[in-house]
Amino acid sequence: MIKAESVWNDVVKIRETPPLVHNITNFVVMNNTANALLAIGASPVMAHAEEEAADMASLAGALVINIGTLNPQWIRGMEIAMDKARERRIPIVFDPVGAGATPYRSQTCRDLLSAYPPDIIRGNASEIGALVSDAVMTRGVDSTLSSDSAADSARRLSGLYGCVVSLSGSTDYIVKDGNQILIFNGHPLMPKVTGLGCTATALTGAFAAVNADYTAAAAHAMAVMGIAGEIAASTTKGPGSFQSDFLDALYNLREQDVRELLKAG
Amino acid sequence: MIKAESVWNDVVKIRETPPLVHNITNFVVMNNTANALLAIGASPVMAHAEEEAADMASLAGALVINIGTLNPQWIRGMEIAMDKARERRIPIVFDPVGAGATPYRSQTCRDLLSAYPPDIIRGNASEIGALVSDAVMTRGVDSTLSSDSAADSARRLSGLYGCVVSLSGSTDYIVKDGNQILIFNGHPLMPKVTGLGCTATALTGAFAAVNADYTAAAAHAMAVMGIAGEIAASTTKGPGSFQSDFLDALYNLREQDVRELLKAG
Amino acid sequence: MIKAESVWNDVVKIRETPPLVHNITNFVVMNNTANALLAIGASPVMAHAEEEAADMASLAGALVINIGTLNPQWIRGMEIAMDKARERRIPIVFDPVGAGATPYRSQTCRDLLSAYPPDIIRGNASEIGALVSDAVMTRGVDSTLSSDSAADSARRLSGLYGCVVSLSGSTDYIVKDGNQILIFNGHPLMPKVTGLGCTATALTGAFAAVNADYTAAAAHAMAVMGIAGEIAASTTKGPGSFQSDFLDALYNLREQDVRELLKAG
Repeated sequence: MIKAESVWNDVVKIRETPPLVHNITNFVVMNNTANALLAIGASPVMAHAEEEAADMASLAGALVINIGTLNPQWIRGMEIAMDKARERRIPIVFDPVGAGATPYRSQTCRDLLSAYPPDIIRGNASEIGALVSDAVMTRGVDSTLSSDSAADSARRLSGLYGCVVSLSGSTDYIVKDGNQILIFNGHPLMPKVTGLGCTATALTGAFAAVNADYTAAAAHAMAVMGIAGEIAASTTKGPGSFQSDFLDALYNLREQDVRELLKAG
Repeated sequence: MIKAESVWNDVVKIRETPPLVHNITNFVVMNNTANALLAIGASPVMAHAEEEAADMASLAGALVINIGTLNPQWIRGMEIAMDKARERRIPIVFDPVGAGATPYRSQTCRDLLSAYPPDIIRGNASEIGALVSDAVMTRGVDSTLSSDSAADSARRLSGLYGCVVSLSGSTDYIVKDGNQILIFNGHPLMPKVTGLGCTATALTGAFAAVNADYTAAAAHAMAVMGIAGEIAASTTKGPGSFQSDFLDALYNLREQDVRELLKAG
Repeated sequence: MIKAESVWNDVVKIRETPPLVHNITNFVVMNNTANALLAIGASPVMAHAEEEAADMASLAGALVINIGTLNPQWIRGMEIAMDKARERRIPIVFDPVGAGATPYRSQTCRDLLSAYPPDIIRGNASEIGALVSDAVMTRGVDSTLSSDSAADSARRLSGLYGCVVSLSGSTDYIVKDGNQILIFNGHPLMPKVTGLGCTATALTGAFAAVNADYTAAAAHAMAVMGIAGEIAASTTKGPGSFQSDFLDALYNLREQDVRELLKAG
């Protein structure tokens, strides 16, 4: 269970700090996730080259790793940045985009998660399922499973790597050590915009940078995603205008919005 | 000649299936083309690494290859994905972005087209012209020729590779085997938004995934592009708002819109 | 001091020519900068591969180099394109994104600037400061200094490479050879949108392509950025809608807007 007051405290901290969030993420969403981080009040930076990955991670308050559009060079940058982030004990948030779709994605996830266990894994039901069972196949990057059906996978994955698992879907499940927070916010238009899952991961990085209780940080991030999505959807005409309405909603978010709209359990 | 009813049948099939469209495309437009595919109802995935290109193509209902921002590594991924797509007999849609601008782009197109003949080539007048004649020079990625002037090149290119050629411009020409469909929909604002040609190519992939008559599929895709463009332009304030209005129009497209607005010959 | 009439003359020239602007820029902003170039009336092309960088630069009216998300392959493409641009005497505009954040970025800037001195460097206060002093550290890609505090660094940097330095911030300083133009246009929302600095650099390329007085060209570009930003901000709801409003404002810019809104000194 999370409280509106705690969600809002983190938003205020992000706006006041603001944390630098180092992202090694995919080509499709870089612009969107940078803009979402700016809109919530954080400072994003994208840097993947092995020549600078450690130096950039040394400046950051959180590291966000997203394996969409991966290739061997990018994986090398991820390894270097994750190694530095663990050395500095800054939070690592990991997004297994498309895990289960190809052996390369699944194996890369397992290699990275084993070598550099992150603090939070954020994924959809297919991706979380694929990380704990070879029997779960992902069809591309969109989930074919409901988040409810994957809640058990999330708990197993959390146990496997000792990290928070943030499973997004129509209900979001944030689990660790037998604890479970459910977020019921969000809107059906959200999966019709590419990369909003990646945006959730990036925002989770910003929250983890200001809140060392990573279970709470992950839940607060998903709550803010869902609330901003509901505000955006109230005026939007479709998935195109939703994108700008969503960034506007993140930027203009008020404590009152969180108090009135938060639906968590 | 195409019918509104047939266009609409394909839209319904895309929304109901939905087909997974595997894209190896350029950095500039990845976000836009993913969002356009989601808006029409398809499921996009972007994956270029040679380590996973075949596996991802094995899941897909269509493969979209776009040579913008190409380099040798990406070409290798394209070759592997095209090879697998041909083996699986799923449609390949090829976009020769900037062919004729540099020898590297022209040569890459010829190499790929010869080795892995696609089912549909979608390009603008300069690009289509450059693929059949070294005398046609492209200035960057924007066409300097009218589509009317390149219709003959489109027919020759179709004969050369035995594929549908979808030539976009103020009139779109979709040609194969002496057949020709003309689409008169569209709006002058569309070339003022980067990557709408690439979006046309991506949508052509979604239509080809649900309609094995690739001439019809290519024409239906161009018709939907043009109609959504006209709907968007009716309320838009410029090329910025046009982008979100266009995605909204794709998402909200109704059979009635197609019936009222389709202008084909 | 610049005049509204001179600013407008350049806009008209861009719309009438239009110049091809060759960009080797970062993954985050490619789409935005391409759209901004189209909106002002120029023709953008993105091409980074060493196999075609010289050929593309041979077609262009200006070359824009932006080191965000750099890696060794991209640097090689930059070197080749810059070499060709200098040979052809077309203007080079250089954006040292994140200089000072990592040794790799700072060193890459110094290597490129020494080997291929550009005509214009456009950066924020932290970046410009870092290029003249190792003592200035950049925190990611957002400036932590005011432009006023870096005006002296801009003058030193201009002397160092014999080029125009365009220092953006709440006041923009465009300096060369003891000359200094100040632009007071702009809006506080602009740093909340990722890549608007990169957009300023790209537009500077379009202006330099039509105006051989690079000090004036750089100042005109910053004036148009600021004016379009003010127009956009007058109707915008946040940083999401600002992006499309800004492109609409660039596209719809009228001479009267420049005359009424220009604030330069």
